[in-house]
Amino acid sequence: MTTVDSRPTVHLPARDIPVPSSLSPEAQAMLAMPRLEISGYPPLADKDAWRDQIAQRNEALLAMMSGRPPAAGTEVDEIEADGVRVYVITPPGVPDDGRVYLDIHGGALILGGGEVCRAMGTGTAARVGARTWAVDYRMPPDHPYPAPLDDCVTAYRALLRDHAPEQIIVGGASAGGNLAAALLLRARDEGLPLPAAAVLATPEADLTESGDTFQTNLGLDPVLRDSLMPANLLYAAGHDLADPYVSPLFGDFTKGFPPTILTTGTRDLFLSNTVRLHRALRAAGVPAELHVLEAAGHGGFFGMAPEDRDLDREIRRFVTLHWSAAA
Amino acid sequence: MTTVDSRPTVHLPARDIPVPSSLSPEAQAMLAMPRLEISGYPPLADKDAWRDQIAQRNEALLAMMSGRPPAAGTEVDEIEADGVRVYVITPPGVPDDGRVYLDIHGGALILGGGEVCRAMGTGTAARVGARTWAVDYRMPPDHPYPAPLDDCVTAYRALLRDHAPEQIIVGGASAGGNLAAALLLRARDEGLPLPAAAVLATPEADLTESGDTFQTNLGLDPVLRDSLMPANLLYAAGHDLADPYVSPLFGDFTKGFPPTILTTGTRDLFLSNTVRLHRALRAAGVPAELHVLEAAGHGGFFGMAPEDRDLDREIRRFVTLHWSAAA
Repeated sequence: MTTVDSRPTVHLPARDIPVPSSLSPEAQAMLAMPRLEISGYPPLADKDAWRDQIAQRNEALLAMMSGRPPAAGTEVDEIEADGVRVYVITPPGVPDDGRVYLDIHGGALILGGGEVCRAMGTGTAARVGARTWAVDYRMPPDHPYPAPLDDCVTAYRALLRDHAPEQIIVGGASAGGNLAAALLLRARDEGLPLPAAAVLATPEADLTESGDTFQTNLGLDPVLRDSLMPANLLYAAGHDLADPYVSPLFGDFTKGFPPTILTTGTRDLFLSNTVRLHRALRAAGVPAELHVLEAAGHGGFFGMAPEDRDLDREIRRFVTLHWSAAA
Repeated sequence: MTTVDSRPTVHLPARDIPVPSSLSPEAQAMLAMPRLEISGYPPLADKDAWRDQIAQRNEALLAMMSGRPPAAGTEVDEIEADGVRVYVITPPGVPDDGRVYLDIHGGALILGGGEVCRAMGTGTAARVGARTWAVDYRMPPDHPYPAPLDDCVTAYRALLRDHAPEQIIVGGASAGGNLAAALLLRARDEGLPLPAAAVLATPEADLTESGDTFQTNLGLDPVLRDSLMPANLLYAAGHDLADPYVSPLFGDFTKGFPPTILTTGTRDLFLSNTVRLHRALRAAGVPAELHVLEAAGHGGFFGMAPEDRDLDREIRRFVTLHWSAAA
């Protein structure tokens, strides 16, 4: 026990952490993949450098997802909802019963636009088994907060014109979990009705990164390899990182929030984000359930392990239950 | 990424992990307490040395708990239930409505007998707000497996003579979570009816210690400072550590198990034990809910922080709900 900068700390010696043999072979292989060098972020003010990095990373994401084409018969329509681009994705065999899933994509609040949004939304639609609105919200460096959140709220308002709120479920993973939760806080504050439920997968709930696992899981999470603070600052563009619309963990959930499912893993850099948001929702009396995958980093095992299917089943059960309750 | 003994590993450099400032002052103070030297366990065959160490540790536990006397008016009767000593604890104001909580104490399967069992059971009774049977089960080194589990099953059988199973809730923390879960597996296999619900707080579900957080949280958990394998081997006394009655994580829960609440913390050495058991129960279709405290080690914050009250409320709500459903 030592004290650094007047904060007490625990000293941990250097260690080699083995991949747990209790995981599926696919999950073990994923955790055993060599860690690539971290490229780092550009200086905050160098917008061209940000644009270049974002374009490169989006290309890499798209290449990764190209191995998972949508199921045959999946329909994708690109629409403008009050000026916001939305991909309306209908998996094969889904009835036109009014149920819709509003999907807010992830990508650290800077990545995942355009074709990546479309590809991620297609995956979401297949997992939840419902018509899905994938919001291609504007992003930094050109459109920092509040533009991305404004676009999500706009899409939700547009949905409410043709749907009873009970027909809508709002969800997002990672940065999408931030925006989904912030959208719900803002919708409520603006007097809009709340949807049937929310799905928050490893939500980036706290852009101040005050959670313990930002330290304890650093180096263990195979996906999130470092603090995301440069992207957080680019997104917030001078706004207070602790504002509840910027970091929904700090919202007041006693004033209303829909039933919520949260998912994470024990090696997830956002484990603290997720369990703290779960505790905050429970403390406010919101029905909220938590599911944690053994040894999984951010976002599970790239969707390639049986463990990922386990969480998919929980989410499918949860959304089906809450849509049924609304029927 | 290196490979040690043919197992791929992640190398983590030495680090200083600060106490999170987002915790309550009480929880921060608990995490900031100096880590005492670990005394280690005696050689497996030296029973006298085990008896000495167990006596010393029990005295230390009793001294710790002496600062928390039972509420005035708490009644404690010592009974023999078919040869097993049980403390029957009735908190003040609890009605004689047949509801009973069967409390299996913790203590690494070697500690916590006698006066410690009585003191821990009194705390449990106050938290769950019900008459509590605290089982003073026999323990190693003189009474290894299956004697401790036999005693728990005997106490449950005795309760069933005077109570409908719906009036009974079974719970335990740590080693008590191991025995509570194993008791339920054995009761089911022996054709006994199952209780209304189970409370498994940071359960020692896997004596093989195959979970990831046995590695990743080593040094971070302020309570469990090292592997408990010597105590596990003393307990198992040559039985297979992976036997479901020894390590209930490996049980088949599809054949019946009551609704369960599980609790842990992100720094808990038993975080993996807990989330893996939660996943196993859910995969078998058992209604099971999980609650994880930010930055908490094994057993939370010694019961001294508001965060501990938060989990106490969840457990109280859960047992009240399941007793009411049975009424």
